[in-house]
Amino acid sequence: MEYRKIKDQEKDGNVGEDDLEGLHGKPPSGVPVNSMASFGGSSIVGSKWKLKSIVTMALTLLTSSQAILIVWSKRAGKYDYSVTTANFSVEALKCALSLAALGRIWKNEGVTEDNRLYTSLDEVIVYPIPAALYLVKNLLQYYIFAYVDAPGYQILKNLNIISTGVLYRIILKKKLSEIQWAAFILLCMGCTTAQLNSSSDHVLQTPFQGLMMAIIMALLSGFAGVYTEAIIKKRPSRNINVQNFWLYVFGMAFNAVAIFIQDFDAVMNKGFFHGYSLITTCMILNHALSGIAVSMVMKYADNIVKVYSTSVAMLLTAVVSVFLFGFHLSLAFFLGSTVVSVSIYLHSIGKPQR
Amino acid sequence: MEYRKIKDQEKDGNVGEDDLEGLHGKPPSGVPVNSMASFGGSSIVGSKWKLKSIVTMALTLLTSSQAILIVWSKRAGKYDYSVTTANFSVEALKCALSLAALGRIWKNEGVTEDNRLYTSLDEVIVYPIPAALYLVKNLLQYYIFAYVDAPGYQILKNLNIISTGVLYRIILKKKLSEIQWAAFILLCMGCTTAQLNSSSDHVLQTPFQGLMMAIIMALLSGFAGVYTEAIIKKRPSRNINVQNFWLYVFGMAFNAVAIFIQDFDAVMNKGFFHGYSLITTCMILNHALSGIAVSMVMKYADNIVKVYSTSVAMLLTAVVSVFLFGFHLSLAFFLGSTVVSVSIYLHSIGKPQR
Repeated sequence: MEYRKIKDQEKDGNVGEDDLEGLHGKPPSGVPVNSMASFGGSSIVGSKWKLKSIVTMALTLLTSSQAILIVWSKRAGKYDYSVTTANFSVEALKCALSLAALGRIWKNEGVTEDNRLYTSLDEVIVYPIPAALYLVKNLLQYYIFAYVDAPGYQILKNLNIISTGVLYRIILKKKLSEIQWAAFILLCMGCTTAQLNSSSDHVLQTPFQGLMMAIIMALLSGFAGVYTEAIIKKRPSRNINVQNFWLYVFGMAFNAVAIFIQDFDAVMNKGFFHGYSLITTCMILNHALSGIAVSMVMKYADNIVKVYSTSVAMLLTAVVSVFLFGFHLSLAFFLGSTVVSVSIYLHSIGKPQR
Repeated sequence: MEYRKIKDQEKDGNVGEDDLEGLHGKPPSGVPVNSMASFGGSSIVGSKWKLKSIVTMALTLLTSSQAILIVWSKRAGKYDYSVTTANFSVEALKCALSLAALGRIWKNEGVTEDNRLYTSLDEVIVYPIPAALYLVKNLLQYYIFAYVDAPGYQILKNLNIISTGVLYRIILKKKLSEIQWAAFILLCMGCTTAQLNSSSDHVLQTPFQGLMMAIIMALLSGFAGVYTEAIIKKRPSRNINVQNFWLYVFGMAFNAVAIFIQDFDAVMNKGFFHGYSLITTCMILNHALSGIAVSMVMKYADNIVKVYSTSVAMLLTAVVSVFLFGFHLSLAFFLGSTVVSVSIYLHSIGKPQR
């Protein structure tokens, strides 16, 4: 049941947005490159639904392949690169891709008010907040394992679903209907059920401190996600690559802090890229693209869609792992997947009346 | 997790209806005896909701105490009475209680078209069908254990929920809204999740024959329940105690057949009531009252309410068992109970628009 031990996905959510260039390289089938080139400017209302579907599918597929890459890398043996330098590399790669996309846009459309890199203090001052929140959360992660084992932590991480829903409601002031709330609770229950194994009951013995830390981490993670959406959506006409660039710059800065705190000696002695293999490079590339997809979902959909997308990715990973690694699916997995499917159905039919 | 091994409840559903006398003995608080005395005749439309709530609560409490009695009897040690004679006794007791209630009604209201015991062939011809279906189902139960173990059978029994919903729709032609269908699937998933334990995955290795038998048993049980509702509701003004009387007479007859098939030698050698203890008597009384409550629910509510009621009873039993027998609740139980709770909520808000 290794698929449960998928790496913390929120790391990639650090910062916001999608890199256009990355998608230009291989545009999703059925979407003309021209219509995608206009994402940076004002989005075409008619294609909003199509766009939303594409970025959601991209996020789902990237997230599930991400988990598979992690299982693969573990199978391949050692896993001895520094996680903090890998996170920094992901941020740097996303930053580079954003700049490349911007370069292309400047060339085609010229520099405008919306796509110029220059920013006001008023605009940029909020950008470090999500990255800082994720840094705190990732540091807490090292301490929570004093109270909870790894499978228990996977279970508790599903609290993110609830915290995201609650903060989405409070901070973004968007309404979910009663049915959608019920669906959201079911999503959390279904995901947790799908991850149940024989040792899951240990989580019920989690000491109070561990539980508090898990709740704080869920709130930090949910707050960072919702806050990123708020930042990105605050200026709808602003080019997403510029928004990304600034988010990623602060992502790099905060991950540099993490390297200093946790891995300074190792990096000094062994070098920055020590232990990187082909698969490490694939994982960094995948994480960068996933981060980009997360940003796209934040811009063109919302955090609720993101949570559904990553939940479905978790289930997809398990099914694909059956074929790739010969994993067995449990009865709990079938039950949980069915509950998640019903949740998605209820979410879609339960749209609030306006 | 013994609460999972609760005895097959459908046995009590053999026949239909509630015995008024039994309720007169201890009327539920807040309901005047007079308004209850009129149940046998035409029901008061205004008190329909109240009545529905009371019979549903009675069924829930009786069913959960039933499972607790079974655990208690197992704890007490031997369990060596004949199950077929116990079933026969339950039917006989229900029959006697129906007659006693009728006697009282005849004395108060006189004999009318609706409460006379005399019946036409046209009315009575359908009454043996539910009892016959349950007999077949109970006999099949002895053979299914060649393919499935007891915990696996408990899991597969949740198919009853789905079969009841489908047959309710097909036979009674009553509509459930989309949301109510989703809720019904969730009820099945939630109940199964709540019953998960470390050996539950064995059920995935159930051979094809075992699975087919489980599905057939679920269909028989669902069909018997829905058919009983159809019989009882076909003549709304007919006194429920008369309907019960005829149902229970055939219940007695078919259980007599079961005694001949399975326990004839034992009964001949050891006697009919061999092995009966105080707790056996309590269980028979409880089963009779539960059967009565099931009939009440069929008359004043429906099979859907019955399924919800017995599902909640299963959860209640587990919680009460924590206090009575020191059982531990699993994480799966919490997840399943939450899904069941959301299902009840969705069922209530998802009423079809008329």
